[in-house]
Amino acid sequence: MVKAAVIFGSRSDAGVMKKAAEVFKEFGVEYGSFVLSAHRSPELLEETIAELEKDGTEVIVAGAGLAAHLPGVIASRTALPVIGVPIASGTLGGMDALLSMAQMPKPMPVAVVGVDNAANAAYLGVEILALKYPELRTKLEAFRAKMKAGLAGDSRIEL
Amino acid sequence: MVKAAVIFGSRSDAGVMKKAAEVFKEFGVEYGSFVLSAHRSPELLEETIAELEKDGTEVIVAGAGLAAHLPGVIASRTALPVIGVPIASGTLGGMDALLSMAQMPKPMPVAVVGVDNAANAAYLGVEILALKYPELRTKLEAFRAKMKAGLAGDSRIEL
Amino acid sequence: MVKAAVIFGSRSDAGVMKKAAEVFKEFGVEYGSFVLSAHRSPELLEETIAELEKDGTEVIVAGAGLAAHLPGVIASRTALPVIGVPIASGTLGGMDALLSMAQMPKPMPVAVVGVDNAANAAYLGVEILALKYPELRTKLEAFRAKMKAGLAGDSRIEL
Amino acid sequence: MVKAAVIFGSRSDAGVMKKAAEVFKEFGVEYGSFVLSAHRSPELLEETIAELEKDGTEVIVAGAGLAAHLPGVIASRTALPVIGVPIASGTLGGMDALLSMAQMPKPMPVAVVGVDNAANAAYLGVEILALKYPELRTKLEAFRAKMKAGLAGDSRIEL
Amino acid sequence: MVKAAVIFGSRSDAGVMKKAAEVFKEFGVEYGSFVLSAHRSPELLEETIAELEKDGTEVIVAGAGLAAHLPGVIASRTALPVIGVPIASGTLGGMDALLSMAQMPKPMPVAVVGVDNAANAAYLGVEILALKYPELRTKLEAFRAKMKAGLAGDSRIEL
Amino acid sequence: MVKAAVIFGSRSDAGVMKKAAEVFKEFGVEYGSFVLSAHRSPELLEETIAELEKDGTEVIVAGAGLAAHLPGVIASRTALPVIGVPIASGTLGGMDALLSMAQMPKPMPVAVVGVDNAANAAYLGVEILALKYPELRTKLEAFRAKMKAGLAGDSRIEL
Amino acid sequence: MVKAAVIFGSRSDAGVMKKAAEVFKEFGVEYGSFVLSAHRSPELLEETIAELEKDGTEVIVAGAGLAAHLPGVIASRTALPVIGVPIASGTLGGMDALLSMAQMPKPMPVAVVGVDNAANAAYLGVEILALKYPELRTKLEAFRAKMKAGLAGDSRIEL
Amino acid sequence: MVKAAVIFGSRSDAGVMKKAAEVFKEFGVEYGSFVLSAHRSPELLEETIAELEKDGTEVIVAGAGLAAHLPGVIASRTALPVIGVPIASGTLGGMDALLSMAQMPKPMPVAVVGVDNAANAAYLGVEILALKYPELRTKLEAFRAKMKAGLAGDSRIEL
Repeated sequence: MVKAAVIFGSRSDAGVMKKAAEVFKEFGVEYGSFVLSAHRSPELLEETIAELEKDGTEVIVAGAGLAAHLPGVIASRTALPVIGVPIASGTLGGMDALLSMAQMPKPMPVAVVGVDNAANAAYLGVEILALKYPELRTKLEAFRAKMKAGLAGDSRIEL
Repeated sequence: MVKAAVIFGSRSDAGVMKKAAEVFKEFGVEYGSFVLSAHRSPELLEETIAELEKDGTEVIVAGAGLAAHLPGVIASRTALPVIGVPIASGTLGGMDALLSMAQMPKPMPVAVVGVDNAANAAYLGVEILALKYPELRTKLEAFRAKMKAGLAGDSRIEL
Repeated sequence: MVKAAVIFGSRSDAGVMKKAAEVFKEFGVEYGSFVLSAHRSPELLEETIAELEKDGTEVIVAGAGLAAHLPGVIASRTALPVIGVPIASGTLGGMDALLSMAQMPKPMPVAVVGVDNAANAAYLGVEILALKYPELRTKLEAFRAKMKAGLAGDSRIEL
Repeated sequence: MVKAAVIFGSRSDAGVMKKAAEVFKEFGVEYGSFVLSAHRSPELLEETIAELEKDGTEVIVAGAGLAAHLPGVIASRTALPVIGVPIASGTLGGMDALLSMAQMPKPMPVAVVGVDNAANAAYLGVEILALKYPELRTKLEAFRAKMKAGLAGDSRIEL
Repeated sequence: MVKAAVIFGSRSDAGVMKKAAEVFKEFGVEYGSFVLSAHRSPELLEETIAELEKDGTEVIVAGAGLAAHLPGVIASRTALPVIGVPIASGTLGGMDALLSMAQMPKPMPVAVVGVDNAANAAYLGVEILALKYPELRTKLEAFRAKMKAGLAGDSRIEL
Repeated sequence: MVKAAVIFGSRSDAGVMKKAAEVFKEFGVEYGSFVLSAHRSPELLEETIAELEKDGTEVIVAGAGLAAHLPGVIASRTALPVIGVPIASGTLGGMDALLSMAQMPKPMPVAVVGVDNAANAAYLGVEILALKYPELRTKLEAFRAKMKAGLAGDSRIEL
Repeated sequence: MVKAAVIFGSRSDAGVMKKAAEVFKEFGVEYGSFVLSAHRSPELLEETIAELEKDGTEVIVAGAGLAAHLPGVIASRTALPVIGVPIASGTLGGMDALLSMAQMPKPMPVAVVGVDNAANAAYLGVEILALKYPELRTKLEAFRAKMKAGLAGDSRIEL
Repeated sequence: MVKAAVIFGSRSDAGVMKKAAEVFKEFGVEYGSFVLSAHRSPELLEETIAELEKDGTEVIVAGAGLAAHLPGVIASRTALPVIGVPIASGTLGGMDALLSMAQMPKPMPVAVVGVDNAANAAYLGVEILALKYPELRTKLEAFRAKMKAGLAGDSRIEL
């Protein structure tokens, strides 16, 4: 049983999306990862979403570039929270993907994070899962406390 | 039997999309028009596309604003040519919709025209249909000749 | 006890943010709403976040325009999921707020939705809460089914 | 006799536009390719368009960067469908070319695809030609079916 | 004999372009004004340019919105200086027209001025004509001197 | 005596601006080139403009990046035509420089060409000088004719 | 003797710039206000800056729209701190003015605030003056404390 | 005792921010530099600001990329002048950081300079400090005079 799914449309996005996987590993969140296209394999995408729902997946991280419909199409097929990672493919710096994800019509939201920021997508996923899984909340708070502690020494730097 | 379909996601887009219908009427192209959402009614959209294909529809004009996935989702479900009209909903002047349509991944193109320019979408539709229907080519040429003739008088204007 | 909080920086944003409240009401999610500024009242904001956490609030919707730091500042103070609504104040159509929310550094994500789309923020909030509260999942699924049923009639429209 | 023409304004665009040629080859569409400038060689462009029309060319793919008037100028000289490929020359990522093509006035549409996405232009060309040539429709459907079949295996990927 | 021509593509642009005419009048520059489309009436445009050249026109001001190819097409047909006025038609604030004019390929420049700033186009036209016509240089210098004199009083303002 | 001046703000822009010099050489236009800053050496800039005017310079090409005030400041100091070359310094692709030049207030126009397109600035300069110097008009026409002749052969290219 | 100057280029900007004056009044900062153009009245601008310096002015707030060179030109003439207010004239929402001010080359900075946000320019001016005038620091701190106290009541709002 | 502080959010910004330090050194302004995050270490940031205030720091230069809240958060915690350096991290060229800093709500201004232009931030800092420290004004004027003198030689350059 996986709690989280990481889905992206092209093998070339794996480098960016790997950061989401690393965060899920860090928090001990079981996840599955899939290359699935909203437009090239819509039936397979629908089947996979249906299976993920049945298997108890609770949050989906979806990365895409360019027209970047993937997270929106997923959001229209499931009422699970869908987190979108706009990927800076092509020549427009990811602005195309960012707008295409954020501007979803109601009632089909995508929770968009920053361009290429798959790590933040997974942190958001952990925050969402932590509502239900107290051990994740504990881990999150420990993680934040540790982060702050790590920064708490002298912040001076020589320039 | 309709040769063309005009599809858009929200009744509030009817004012913009009516211009496509007017062009189809002007050229005697039978068309059907539909309010269908890529995300709110995906199954109905798929059924309608399947029916349109079976009924012999040959070109689809699809208008949408914001994330504007509609034309891309249609393009992924049919190999008929899909023409996208980015609609300037919201506060970004239609730039969101323009990018979301144009940047579709291969091999699922959307033929994008200008923001709110549904008339141009229908002209493009007529050009496409004219490949197969010589009477449309004749009409198109007559239309262009008449347009030029209408402009051929004195172009001077008092400023 | 409120499950959700709706926070925004200026009374002038109430018209936009009311749409979030309406969705929470529709789903029977108890919510509290607050006018709080990241920069004008940071201590009060921090206190309120601390109280909300103690009171069991589980998701926070935060709307802001212009520099729009509010959701990001909240996200840095709590590990609860924070959903950001970029508001189109000023003359740049909300692009300023959208970027300022989406581009948060890890590990402090904001879940951004579309410009002025507070309703979608609340739908996302409900989806998140539904992980833990099965009755919300049931309601969400009923809501989606009803939406589709409502759209399932003849989609034809006269243009 | 060629069914499709691939036209672009500068030899330096050949690398991008070659992708259109490859798709036409893949579908067995005869095509001719030309370097022609809307502004440096307007008469030659007009003559070539006239010859292409006489020779039975049925769809034109035109790529250009910067001001990127080429597809629009062609569209004003022929009622054949003209597909525009915005090329990311210069420093603005192709946004200049995208707007310059998409925003054509009625009744002279250009069917715009994504920045540098010449392959999608040719796929669109094949979809258009398939209206008249049933063997292309068959090939398109086989191609799509094969694409889906190729994606139908396990979509899991290790991250 | 006119020294300057003011050309624009649509009667709806007359309000903006009138400002150019007013400046030419102010400086006693004979001008002719024309509604001509680069794409709807290309032959008429070419004929008019040829006639203007023969009649001794020495500078051309051309205004257009959206794809705004008009000034570039004129620049490709004549070696006279062509001044472009990007007009803010549509929903993108004239950014489309500005890029479409400025980014012309060499050796076919358009001299672009600000969005909707037809007056500045005419001032530039007068500066150009003044190279050859000393009385225009005299007038320009008098005009600038008078402008400065008019501003030379107390610049204080009550706020 | 120079007919044209090429001015730019920083030695690092010399690579871009050299293209203007090459065009002036090609047409036998005497030119002088100067590194002068609108803001770091305003007095020297003013003196140089005054000297250029006295020496009979008739057109000024000015290149700048970032805030790119140079051409506008020159335009405010002389009624000679000033041609601006927006240079893509920094990280914004030259959009900053393009807007800063084009949007000059009346009656102080800058004739803007494309980003980094110094060659086009010089072609425009030659077109302007040709109003007064018939030998330049002859050269321009020969140049254009030769360009077209060079393009007139078979435009086919193998892709 | 004035401590602060408020300068803007056009009487039509008075409505926006008045907000700066109101803040200076609120803090008891003597100020003078001037309509002066960087390009239409450069000598008068220079003289005024010289006089302001001699009279002991210590900070300058300058507002402008479009190309918006005014603050940069002032910054190049004085080593006093210059605060720029980008004004949303024209059709580009003030993005032109914002870039034209912010991207000033070293060592001539303009301290840019938000579009149309003249109040913030004056608050920044007060902060700067407070370095030297302890009574302004006291007032600033009282002002901030009062602002927070005013916000400290119940932040709940009914939605 | 330091007069100026240079604060930035990530060690990876040190290369950009070093330019601010170099300018402060050049003018003999004592400064301290700190790596501090608005969101990862808010308490430490607040403590540091409080200490800096107590120690007599008079101006703060803060650099950040992406959402770039750092300067705004500092500005909300102190009434000292805060100068923001937008850093071009990520794929959007620093436009995200520029907007996020400039569009701060009143009465919490950030004095924004150009993207990656930390040197200009420090020059602005020196200009501000010079109000109180006459020796800095003397140095600034000497620096400017020397800069102009250095530029005063022949500005001609061979192209």
